[in-house]
Amino acid sequence: MLRLTAMKMHNLLPLSRAEFVAACHPDGILLPDQGCHHYGLIVQYEDTDAGGIVYHAHYLNYAERARSAVLRAGGIHLGARLRSTGEGIIIRQVEARYHAPAQLHDQIIVVTRLEQLKRASLWLAQHIISPETGLIFARLLVEGVWVNKKYAPCRFPDDVREIITHLSVAGEGTA
Amino acid sequence: MLRLTAMKMHNLLPLSRAEFVAACHPDGILLPDQGCHHYGLIVQYEDTDAGGIVYHAHYLNYAERARSAVLRAGGIHLGARLRSTGEGIIIRQVEARYHAPAQLHDQIIVVTRLEQLKRASLWLAQHIISPETGLIFARLLVEGVWVNKKYAPCRFPDDVREIITHLSVAGEGTA
Amino acid sequence: MLRLTAMKMHNLLPLSRAEFVAACHPDGILLPDQGCHHYGLIVQYEDTDAGGIVYHAHYLNYAERARSAVLRAGGIHLGARLRSTGEGIIIRQVEARYHAPAQLHDQIIVVTRLEQLKRASLWLAQHIISPETGLIFARLLVEGVWVNKKYAPCRFPDDVREIITHLSVAGEGTA
Amino acid sequence: MLRLTAMKMHNLLPLSRAEFVAACHPDGILLPDQGCHHYGLIVQYEDTDAGGIVYHAHYLNYAERARSAVLRAGGIHLGARLRSTGEGIIIRQVEARYHAPAQLHDQIIVVTRLEQLKRASLWLAQHIISPETGLIFARLLVEGVWVNKKYAPCRFPDDVREIITHLSVAGEGTA
Repeated sequence: MLRLTAMKMHNLLPLSRAEFVAACHPDGILLPDQGCHHYGLIVQYEDTDAGGIVYHAHYLNYAERARSAVLRAGGIHLGARLRSTGEGIIIRQVEARYHAPAQLHDQIIVVTRLEQLKRASLWLAQHIISPETGLIFARLLVEGVWVNKKYAPCRFPDDVREIITHLSVAGEGTA
Repeated sequence: MLRLTAMKMHNLLPLSRAEFVAACHPDGILLPDQGCHHYGLIVQYEDTDAGGIVYHAHYLNYAERARSAVLRAGGIHLGARLRSTGEGIIIRQVEARYHAPAQLHDQIIVVTRLEQLKRASLWLAQHIISPETGLIFARLLVEGVWVNKKYAPCRFPDDVREIITHLSVAGEGTA
Repeated sequence: MLRLTAMKMHNLLPLSRAEFVAACHPDGILLPDQGCHHYGLIVQYEDTDAGGIVYHAHYLNYAERARSAVLRAGGIHLGARLRSTGEGIIIRQVEARYHAPAQLHDQIIVVTRLEQLKRASLWLAQHIISPETGLIFARLLVEGVWVNKKYAPCRFPDDVREIITHLSVAGEGTA
Repeated sequence: MLRLTAMKMHNLLPLSRAEFVAACHPDGILLPDQGCHHYGLIVQYEDTDAGGIVYHAHYLNYAERARSAVLRAGGIHLGARLRSTGEGIIIRQVEARYHAPAQLHDQIIVVTRLEQLKRASLWLAQHIISPETGLIFARLLVEGVWVNKKYAPCRFPDDVREIITHLSVAGEGTA
């Protein structure tokens, strides 16, 4: 198996085919007992590059889709809110480590956990993995900020805050 | 509802929420009785532009994801085949008509039907619609060609041809 | 040379290296004597797919960049106008024919001509070619509509209309 | 001016319009005296999202285009090399900090400097800035690895190594 670093395996995996398919639900699957969220997807042509593998910036897209799915799983429709209030999430920092290249039509699971939750910002750990083998393709740390329509940070709405707290076992992120 | 042309509605829709979720299966849903395939997805941030709507080229991506899902539904893994034989599908023509703009986090169904099947090429009609209302966002006609690793057209493999014939009621496309 | 159809060559090309570089100006180059606009770019990793060639939907992006460059060449800043008035161009139809696949780091010229100009809409012919050989990678016909912030078609502003008329030798498009 | 953090300005800027246009050359501009490389581009529709700003993952694309331009400036055509030898650069780590959102049709300069050069890998600092104001939109630290066709790290070819050393004043990167 191709890899760029010492092989890293995710401890909760592999998943069964049925578990992967369930994670392909448009909201993904919120797993409060495990303090995380699973979001399944398939690597598409548009995601790959001439090197035959997923173009490195697209892992950030996978992570974004998973974050939106977390909110949908909590009944929060970011698109409608953006249009009505101008509020939404902006990304302030990303740290991405690439361990092994995913390839065309591979199955992918994005595992999202809360690392730290503040008044107007949060850190999420998002691991992008193979559900079949547990191999970690990439690990992302993402800092998001809740902003108003002038892009000024403002307090997370209560409903957004509540759904986020399900992303850690303790119900609270830890740095 | 926003629209660019006289409103067009799809005759098989709306779908129930359960039907939409079922179409979000990574293989979509093949409906041989109806001679078509449904593929569900959500409009993501990466798909939208500063106009607040889906960037027009991304509807072609949605159609591509649906085509790959059709093949997966037939047990055909294009990525593995590309890597082992160098064969795959190249797009030769696209005709796209945009009727109404899809917005961030909208639900989407891609309905794929066979229009014409030849020895090494085919025409598909792919409608991109709202499962909730039946509103047609865009209609695509796509000509694909099966090519070898030198991009020369060659006969569709039998397994690919067989799955494609499920995309029309008669089991044969008609021009 | 790879190709998907009988080889097509563009009649104004090849360009010299200096001409290609000049067309990479952020506004491209308006050539009123020839009734067209040249926009130069390089195929980037992000544009290619696992087939080793430019992903078919990305030719629509190249054409869009060229259209924005035409307007900038006429002193029109679409981004600022969108933010201040909500007006802009929406694409209503695209017909794309792919003739030969462009590859990573190839040089590209988008040649844009006016086909037809109406009160609130236009048709452009956009050829995507190799400046070195004149080989045509793809030919697009694109119908754009000027819309207000509710996406309703409205009359082209005079300054936009004026710059567009430079895209045909007669100063008028012909169907 | 919108910003996500305390405003950060780049010390070499602003650039004149002529300097920006010069940096839009397909190879960008190598500035060995300053130990850096400038690459100019315009924010396109495809780069923005429904929030009206550049989608966060696309800054990684801008940085990638600048890296390819550095190599072209040194006479190295990565696409041809990938096709002939299977060798190329893979990204192993990215740290991105977003300071202010770039908007549709903004001018952008990517300033690339070498931070550290090893046998088979390097760290680059890439700042994405406004040439008009010197405002920093984003700062990236990127670790790239030279790999063979099996994605195994291997020594930088001499011609690649030579061009990279122009990206620091001392001709050597410093951690």
